[in-house]
Amino acid sequence: MKKAVPDRIARLRAGLAESDLSGLVVSAPSNIFYLSGFTGSSGALLITAERALLFSDFRYRLQSREQAPDFEFVEVERDLFQRVGRVSADTCAGRLGYESAHLTCELLGHLTEGLQSRELVAATGLVEDFRAIKSPDEIVHIRAAAALADQALDHMISLLRPGATERDIALEGEYFMRRAGADAVAFDLIVASGPRSALPHAGTSTRELQPGDLVVIDIGAAVDGYCSDMTRTFAVQTATEQARQIYEIAHRAQRAAAAAVQAGAICGEVDAVARTIIDEADFGDCFGHGLGHGVGVDVHEAPHLRKGDDTRLAAGNVVTVEPGIYLPDIGGVRLEDLLVVQADGAETLTASAMPAELPVV
Amino acid sequence: MKKAVPDRIARLRAGLAESDLSGLVVSAPSNIFYLSGFTGSSGALLITAERALLFSDFRYRLQSREQAPDFEFVEVERDLFQRVGRVSADTCAGRLGYESAHLTCELLGHLTEGLQSRELVAATGLVEDFRAIKSPDEIVHIRAAAALADQALDHMISLLRPGATERDIALEGEYFMRRAGADAVAFDLIVASGPRSALPHAGTSTRELQPGDLVVIDIGAAVDGYCSDMTRTFAVQTATEQARQIYEIAHRAQRAAAAAVQAGAICGEVDAVARTIIDEADFGDCFGHGLGHGVGVDVHEAPHLRKGDDTRLAAGNVVTVEPGIYLPDIGGVRLEDLLVVQADGAETLTASAMPAELPVV
Repeated sequence: MKKAVPDRIARLRAGLAESDLSGLVVSAPSNIFYLSGFTGSSGALLITAERALLFSDFRYRLQSREQAPDFEFVEVERDLFQRVGRVSADTCAGRLGYESAHLTCELLGHLTEGLQSRELVAATGLVEDFRAIKSPDEIVHIRAAAALADQALDHMISLLRPGATERDIALEGEYFMRRAGADAVAFDLIVASGPRSALPHAGTSTRELQPGDLVVIDIGAAVDGYCSDMTRTFAVQTATEQARQIYEIAHRAQRAAAAAVQAGAICGEVDAVARTIIDEADFGDCFGHGLGHGVGVDVHEAPHLRKGDDTRLAAGNVVTVEPGIYLPDIGGVRLEDLLVVQADGAETLTASAMPAELPVV
Repeated sequence: MKKAVPDRIARLRAGLAESDLSGLVVSAPSNIFYLSGFTGSSGALLITAERALLFSDFRYRLQSREQAPDFEFVEVERDLFQRVGRVSADTCAGRLGYESAHLTCELLGHLTEGLQSRELVAATGLVEDFRAIKSPDEIVHIRAAAALADQALDHMISLLRPGATERDIALEGEYFMRRAGADAVAFDLIVASGPRSALPHAGTSTRELQPGDLVVIDIGAAVDGYCSDMTRTFAVQTATEQARQIYEIAHRAQRAAAAAVQAGAICGEVDAVARTIIDEADFGDCFGHGLGHGVGVDVHEAPHLRKGDDTRLAAGNVVTVEPGIYLPDIGGVRLEDLLVVQADGAETLTASAMPAELPVV
């Protein structure tokens, strides 16, 4: 990580110049981490053409020195953003950018107070745009996170039996990944069974698995600050014809959309590949979310594979492809792989099997 | 929880009337949970004198019905806050409040677009103020969370030996609490050893414990949406005279400040009780954070026990009392209990022992 920091700051400075900004106040924790290496829970960066400052409080005095040696540390007791504003006013002339998608209205007020009459400009997406294209080093971390999730999934599959609770299966999956070296889970793992599998972001409950349940397992690890994301669907002991049918459609949609992923492809058109297959099978109303999203420092980041999005994929994007079909009160299927976009296709980072027919365990 | 929702909405409506607001847009996840029971990752509430609406997307269609039956569900495909604005414009005349401490600048822009010319007012703290005083039902959940942390701490103490890593000890503590029924941890557990114990919010690393280390363990569970918070400090096998000394001072400060907690006490004065003891022992520079904070749906919430804060404690507040002394590059001590404020004192929810002399394990 450390070596990458100067490159990223240089790239941001070029971006600032293009946007006619004299500096950027960075407040999104994932952008702070990406640019500086700092992981404290409270802080902000100010990056100008000449200087790179990290503002935080007493608690992070030593940690900032350890994690962000390329930054000058400014220790602030209270009203951190007012201080950022004051230092900005002293440090750079001209327009100052801030991250409007992350900064709260209250903190913008503090920043403005400190800045007094300096011009502030909403500059969301500057850092996120760089982040969407991963370097080989970053892909190493994402690959490691995906490999841990693959191993954990095998362990979780071994626990799928009537009477096991969603929560226990999720906890064992998380414990497995963290013992194996994950910093954390990329998100609260989802184990959603029976009718709950029709809730696309159900989390887990204390529901016990029953024969005939569909079980959606959505799992990701975080390694060295980078996330992975994968989903598989199973049936417990037995499966209805309807469950087999929606699985088969979701699988077909997943494979067709994954095959459409390559540099230059338009995000909305990749989404449409999957959506058309599900629509034509008359389940269009049961696939209410986008096809996929970028994955990196955040588990949801740019680019977004969704209806109407005209962004073009680029080599180095890492995206999920995850169509789902959800039948309220009955159950659902979601199948998700993680892909690295390449010039002429994509490499799938997920290694876990995705059988063409609903796996019954 | 369900029974409490109508009471909370009624209380909020009274608060809106006092603030001359016709409605409030609630965007902070913890306030959304407190007022409605909804735990989805994306959503907003609009509460007016007559109506209570929950806005979220397709993913939460069923979950919202299950968790927030007192709310009308509005399903939004994109630009959630623009929709909230449009519905607000149709639903209530007069000034509309929003949570400026939680809403991002970008989402305020979307809300404003939807609302068109309606007057928007920053109304932060309305819900938080109610939340600071806990009902007996809420204290039941916090007590349960504190009891789980007490048990987990015993387990973690049994693992404190040279060669054990901070991360493994923290993971075992978390796994213990979640297997015992915690929904989650209240925060990433801290196990900070040796020089890292001088980092007040160190998190964990792969550092192995060594004889003579100070080890700070900061642990909390979440049960039914409510948090607990507790810290203890230990020495591994042997302790220096200096470590024993700073422990004894921190302990004296903790006990004196905890004894000063009661309804009517001024937050800044309770902080001063501990700070004076540490100052007089010449370690004032080594205690850079506030004495404590409220705990509830969030692990950090109102009220705040900190220098100069003139808020008065009230019966039903649940607060931490956690002085610390941190010697850079050497080590630190922090001791934290969780207290329920009562008319004539406080009840300590933490049951784990806090010996007057540094425990050597």
